[in-house]
Amino acid sequence: MADLLTSIDAVKGFRAAGVHAGLKKSGAPDMALVVSSQPCVTAGVFTTNKVKAAPVLVNIDRLQHNPEGIRAVVVNTVSANACTGELGIQNAERTAAAEAEHLGVAPQSVLVMSTGVIGSHLPMQKIIPGVQQAYEALGDNWADAAAAIMTTDLQPKLASVRVRTVHGEYTIAGIAKGSGMIAPNMATMLGVIVTDARLSLEQASSALSAANGLSFNKIVVDGDTSTNDMVMLMANGVSGIALHDETDIALFIDGLTRVCTQLAQAIVRDGEGVTKFITISVANAASAAAADAIARTIATSQLVKTAFYGSDANWGRIIAAAGRAGVIFDPDTARLWIRPGEAALADDEEPGLLLFSGGQPTGYEEKAASEIMASASIYVTLDCGTGDGSATIWTCDLSHDYVSINADYRT
Amino acid sequence: MADLLTSIDAVKGFRAAGVHAGLKKSGAPDMALVVSSQPCVTAGVFTTNKVKAAPVLVNIDRLQHNPEGIRAVVVNTVSANACTGELGIQNAERTAAAEAEHLGVAPQSVLVMSTGVIGSHLPMQKIIPGVQQAYEALGDNWADAAAAIMTTDLQPKLASVRVRTVHGEYTIAGIAKGSGMIAPNMATMLGVIVTDARLSLEQASSALSAANGLSFNKIVVDGDTSTNDMVMLMANGVSGIALHDETDIALFIDGLTRVCTQLAQAIVRDGEGVTKFITISVANAASAAAADAIARTIATSQLVKTAFYGSDANWGRIIAAAGRAGVIFDPDTARLWIRPGEAALADDEEPGLLLFSGGQPTGYEEKAASEIMASASIYVTLDCGTGDGSATIWTCDLSHDYVSINADYRT
Repeated sequence: MADLLTSIDAVKGFRAAGVHAGLKKSGAPDMALVVSSQPCVTAGVFTTNKVKAAPVLVNIDRLQHNPEGIRAVVVNTVSANACTGELGIQNAERTAAAEAEHLGVAPQSVLVMSTGVIGSHLPMQKIIPGVQQAYEALGDNWADAAAAIMTTDLQPKLASVRVRTVHGEYTIAGIAKGSGMIAPNMATMLGVIVTDARLSLEQASSALSAANGLSFNKIVVDGDTSTNDMVMLMANGVSGIALHDETDIALFIDGLTRVCTQLAQAIVRDGEGVTKFITISVANAASAAAADAIARTIATSQLVKTAFYGSDANWGRIIAAAGRAGVIFDPDTARLWIRPGEAALADDEEPGLLLFSGGQPTGYEEKAASEIMASASIYVTLDCGTGDGSATIWTCDLSHDYVSINADYRT
Repeated sequence: MADLLTSIDAVKGFRAAGVHAGLKKSGAPDMALVVSSQPCVTAGVFTTNKVKAAPVLVNIDRLQHNPEGIRAVVVNTVSANACTGELGIQNAERTAAAEAEHLGVAPQSVLVMSTGVIGSHLPMQKIIPGVQQAYEALGDNWADAAAAIMTTDLQPKLASVRVRTVHGEYTIAGIAKGSGMIAPNMATMLGVIVTDARLSLEQASSALSAANGLSFNKIVVDGDTSTNDMVMLMANGVSGIALHDETDIALFIDGLTRVCTQLAQAIVRDGEGVTKFITISVANAASAAAADAIARTIATSQLVKTAFYGSDANWGRIIAAAGRAGVIFDPDTARLWIRPGEAALADDEEPGLLLFSGGQPTGYEEKAASEIMASASIYVTLDCGTGDGSATIWTCDLSHDYVSINADYRT
């Protein structure tokens, strides 16, 4: 079994650091480093955006050529190093090479991540000293590392889990950042997950793919997929615990999914200007893909998101969004409920207040609906009545603050 | 040739009215009526949303069975009569039947349109007297009719064109409403276009389809496609001018496109909370469909829209949106310009300030870019360099007021 921990305990053989390298004018930490004492089997998922940032391109190449020899990840904020051409690639490689020299490892064993403004070059005169600072600050400093990868995030995001198996214990832990440009697709904003379990490359890749599909790929803040999204899973094997059979693999995936889900939900909760955490659960759609399309269309609708912000039970916008999702949807067989909270429904549990059924409103009490909509967490259940596909998306409202933050992001 | 008129002149054989039937609490006009003295050849385009409002379903049926015998359209605001089940259909039919009785025509010759809140039933105790009021107010009252179909619109939307042919003159005129839930797909928000030209049903249908594809289908306010979108073209032939050959048809389509484009652009200009009118022109994409997908993804991106609101030349968001449009896009061959204004580029004209080229920023002056971004109209040109497909989308920014308007729409 796997227990979520309240903070990141030591993950054997890993150290972390977060420092201020002079990138953020505020003086806040702006560069992070995660290092393993041993080479790591490493899997990655990357943005599906056709415009891929230099660090994404560099890491894809490194994981193709050296997937079992990764030792470290360096992360910088403020500049995304995206849309920066050949110089951007060179700067990403120089950053990795400088850190590799401090660590005494091959340049190819260091990965790089960037987040910030698109189209600005890395300020190498600050990055290179920052790389050294981060090296010197290495220790059990996960909170510093999580803080140092924040941009408009208000909270650092950490999660970890201790997994107990018949062979012994190991730990899975991770840090992530989110905030805006969040609609991950086969990847997310930056995430680094580490484990001291011993995994084969295939086990690491398939576990990350499975966990990612159930966590980072199920969140939407604003519908914009970034050029820099990526999540890495680094396994250094220092615990000595390997995955021997299907049971071991299932336990690992379960633990990894819990860490990724906690980080993913933290990204939604801390999305730009967010005041409410919304779960969109779609059941009995024509297929799982149809359910996902419907849930995602609802979650990205500006009208739905502003209604949540205003605590207005304007369910017609939810049904209208479902109707334009581009998949089979029949309002006559659909039923829509809302309730406060965010925990998944138990099998025999009522899904809350029924708003819409049989193609028309149910005659519910508006006051009861408004009270639910005023909750900090709202759970929406849409039963399509057309098949057996289901999907759940976690999202948020659209507030005045989102507009303020993004109207002036660069100033 | 076709001249756009500054107001709607009499269109022979048509009368219009706009009245207050007690639907809007403000006392503003809330029901409109357009009537022809002769049966009209009528074509319609309708929302592609799977959830279709009762008036959409009723009109689709009427145009299937009686497309050359239409006499009138009744429009109500406040209630969209969508998601209202069988009672919604009955109420739409009762509205049409009541108006038909006043006009002394068959119920099947009256169309209905509704806009407002989804899921509320038509208040028939107000609608039925309103139908009579509108009948009694009939005259050359296009401005009243345009005002009476507004919801959160701030301005009434009218356009008309006088077309001179070798056979004589005819007029094309229309009214429309928009504001929120605007991402028409094969249709738009409500629009009624009338002409005294004599058209066959096939000429009317193909002309409306062509003009609609170049006008209403090219605008985006918030990316939400309504359940109630529809545009009607009613041709009563009273001018006696028919379309005899390809030249006549081309002239008519040109005139109709100008009326529809003026109405469509007026909808964007008057979108909820809009402070800026944005043209997204995509050239040399892999195909016309790819160009449309890229332009539309840019136009619906919350991050792009908030950057326009903040006058921030954050072009990285535009390139990132292009990269997630789901079609071929290569940042290394793309070039991006901005300039003030909204007129289409002449063939030999420079597209403005070049921001991005060869996969990286051009070294433009930030001050020059900010000045352009502060304009009331901004023209964005993206040359993809990957083919010969092009598309233009008209859109707007995303402001605090959009959030305010939609957070409290029903209260």
